[in-house]
Amino acid sequence: MIKGKLILIPTVIGENTEKQNIPPIIFNTIKKTNIFIVENIRSARRFIKKIYPAKDIEQTMFYAYGKHDSIDYEQDLLLHILAGEDVGLISEAGTPSVADPGSKIVEYAHNFNIIVTPLVGPSSILLALMASGMNGQNFAFNGYLAIESKERINKIKQLEKLAHTQKQTQIFMETPYRNNQLLEVILKTCRPQSRLCIASNITTEKESILTKTISEWKTIKININKQPSIFLLY
Amino acid sequence: MIKGKLILIPTVIGENTEKQNIPPIIFNTIKKTNIFIVENIRSARRFIKKIYPAKDIEQTMFYAYGKHDSIDYEQDLLLHILAGEDVGLISEAGTPSVADPGSKIVEYAHNFNIIVTPLVGPSSILLALMASGMNGQNFAFNGYLAIESKERINKIKQLEKLAHTQKQTQIFMETPYRNNQLLEVILKTCRPQSRLCIASNITTEKESILTKTISEWKTIKININKQPSIFLLY
Repeated sequence: MIKGKLILIPTVIGENTEKQNIPPIIFNTIKKTNIFIVENIRSARRFIKKIYPAKDIEQTMFYAYGKHDSIDYEQDLLLHILAGEDVGLISEAGTPSVADPGSKIVEYAHNFNIIVTPLVGPSSILLALMASGMNGQNFAFNGYLAIESKERINKIKQLEKLAHTQKQTQIFMETPYRNNQLLEVILKTCRPQSRLCIASNITTEKESILTKTISEWKTIKININKQPSIFLLY
Repeated sequence: MIKGKLILIPTVIGENTEKQNIPPIIFNTIKKTNIFIVENIRSARRFIKKIYPAKDIEQTMFYAYGKHDSIDYEQDLLLHILAGEDVGLISEAGTPSVADPGSKIVEYAHNFNIIVTPLVGPSSILLALMASGMNGQNFAFNGYLAIESKERINKIKQLEKLAHTQKQTQIFMETPYRNNQLLEVILKTCRPQSRLCIASNITTEKESILTKTISEWKTIKININKQPSIFLLY
């Protein structure tokens, strides 16, 4: 019997952008796959229904690996794979196992010699980097910064230093409702000539991607409260 | 008059994968856009013809920014934008301005307040990271490593140390005909328990993405000579 594969299926990062941004391979995979490990069952079902409305959701199995869930790797993944069935991995938004906890599942797959197939799709981190005009030959993604004020300031200073000394673009993010506070701290902490890119609402009609020096940003009024954003420093 | 935009248009990373991996937004953009700044005119024309065979290539303008070319930012980009025309940026393979020199053009666009729009498409770096099972919440892309032997060994040691101490996945690449030599050096240099992912021929039928410890890799015969590959260390 041929073993199944673990297929990493990106979803959209902006509402109602499926038609434009999802490549055919995702449609074909969703059509054929009946077992999914997902970060959030509700949003995964909604995505699948949008991509392929004829999908029989009642015949589809979902296992959740979100913050408050845990999957049984053997039962929910390995046994399906050994039975010859493909399993799809879907995160809350964008590409699974980048800036999300899905990589543990992929790690398990490698340990059991399961073939892992990543599909092309939207990644806010990659799109922000492309559009930032900053160094794309050397860059680092740092996830979420610390919340505690002093620790956060130190981290920003450290990232700014790395950007300058290593010529390495520094990418990070924040929970959207704290975006304005993070921006304020960056403007207070960084040198006037450092460059900051703020990439908000990527792939949507409200998309805004601007790269300016810290001293330029200080003269601009911008409200990114609750706007999903990626920050890049160089 | 409404200004044009600079649109970042990814291409495929494997031959004949257009139909599966290119999202509709790229088809629509190629159809509408008549001015392109491209890393390589020949491969860009071929890509455009594959995506939209009816395209009138004679009515399409191409400016090359490859290794042996240089564009005139004002004439080739700014004047078209000011005349209300969109300009597409296309790199040799994958996403423009990631692991390629296109970011200088994007930087110029930001300096002249030109709107930059990145489109979703294939990136070997991102796909390799997704499928590696390594930390996707903290990672760095380091481009090509030095060629000189001692410098290269030191760099690999430094990346291994960063991976361990910072829990940061380290991503790098090599010119495909030197892949086997690079692998040999990694196996000699790194600690037995470090994990290495080799992601080759991503999105093609020959795709192979394997994550193993250094000591496991030492027991395996693998030939990645001339196979486009991404290396990840953790």
